[in-house]
Amino acid sequence: MFSPRAIGIAHTPYTQTKEIPKGLGAKHDAEGVFEILPEFEAGLTDIEGFSHLFVLWVFDRSEGFELFGTVPIDGQPHGVFSTRSPRRPNPIGLTVVELLRREAGRLHVRGVDMLDGTPILDLKPYLSSIPPEKLRRGWIAEAETRAKK
Amino acid sequence: MFSPRAIGIAHTPYTQTKEIPKGLGAKHDAEGVFEILPEFEAGLTDIEGFSHLFVLWVFDRSEGFELFGTVPIDGQPHGVFSTRSPRRPNPIGLTVVELLRREAGRLHVRGVDMLDGTPILDLKPYLSSIPPEKLRRGWIAEAETRAKK
Repeated sequence: MFSPRAIGIAHTPYTQTKEIPKGLGAKHDAEGVFEILPEFEAGLTDIEGFSHLFVLWVFDRSEGFELFGTVPIDGQPHGVFSTRSPRRPNPIGLTVVELLRREAGRLHVRGVDMLDGTPILDLKPYLSSIPPEKLRRGWIAEAETRAKK
Repeated sequence: MFSPRAIGIAHTPYTQTKEIPKGLGAKHDAEGVFEILPEFEAGLTDIEGFSHLFVLWVFDRSEGFELFGTVPIDGQPHGVFSTRSPRRPNPIGLTVVELLRREAGRLHVRGVDMLDGTPILDLKPYLSSIPPEKLRRGWIAEAETRAKK
């Protein structure tokens, strides 16, 4: 295995977990800045050509994990790998953000959903999408249907 | 920071890196099995309702990293965060797979692009896609255009 290290820090509007939009229909259009450490800045070369990025980050204010637990969306228990719960065996978060612009080592992005000061592990280009008609969203879709009734 | 631990192992058709389809137009429709360790199996509850999953895994046979390097697709140098190179500061791979079926702790999936025996770190449901018309794919799109000429 490897030893995770931060390549940078996320600056976001959220200082507490409860401020982050959650649940059905939650919109993530908050803007933020990913400040990449100077020693990793060369790794950003050409990144401005991509409209969207995957960002991998650390749930650094989450402790321990739970294999089976209830989530706010529907109050039902689900397996942790069927949810985006922060309490995971490896506390890694994954978010797709829109890249608005780059200023040297600072990436201005839209769609942040992590706390201010979150350590960033990796950035990758988002290259293709699964066609919506091929996507099944399991218990999330069921919870949405129940919520509409 | 945290200490990464494997939640399972990927069984794939690839025993050497050179066997994995790469480059423009590479198709990843190979099938494989994610064998989740018994102590994490409860975390899979409800996962069979999702058609696609994000899988986070470790480039465990890659050493060191390179911030700026050439990739096979176009032979041009690009920053590591603009590529899917295995030689990253945090050697974490990310793949979207189609979930074909679950047999207890074994997930049969399509779209594997990691070596046989790769340690799996996390699974997350794939919930939504970026509409193709909103996606810009930077140097990848440019390399494709050049390749067609």
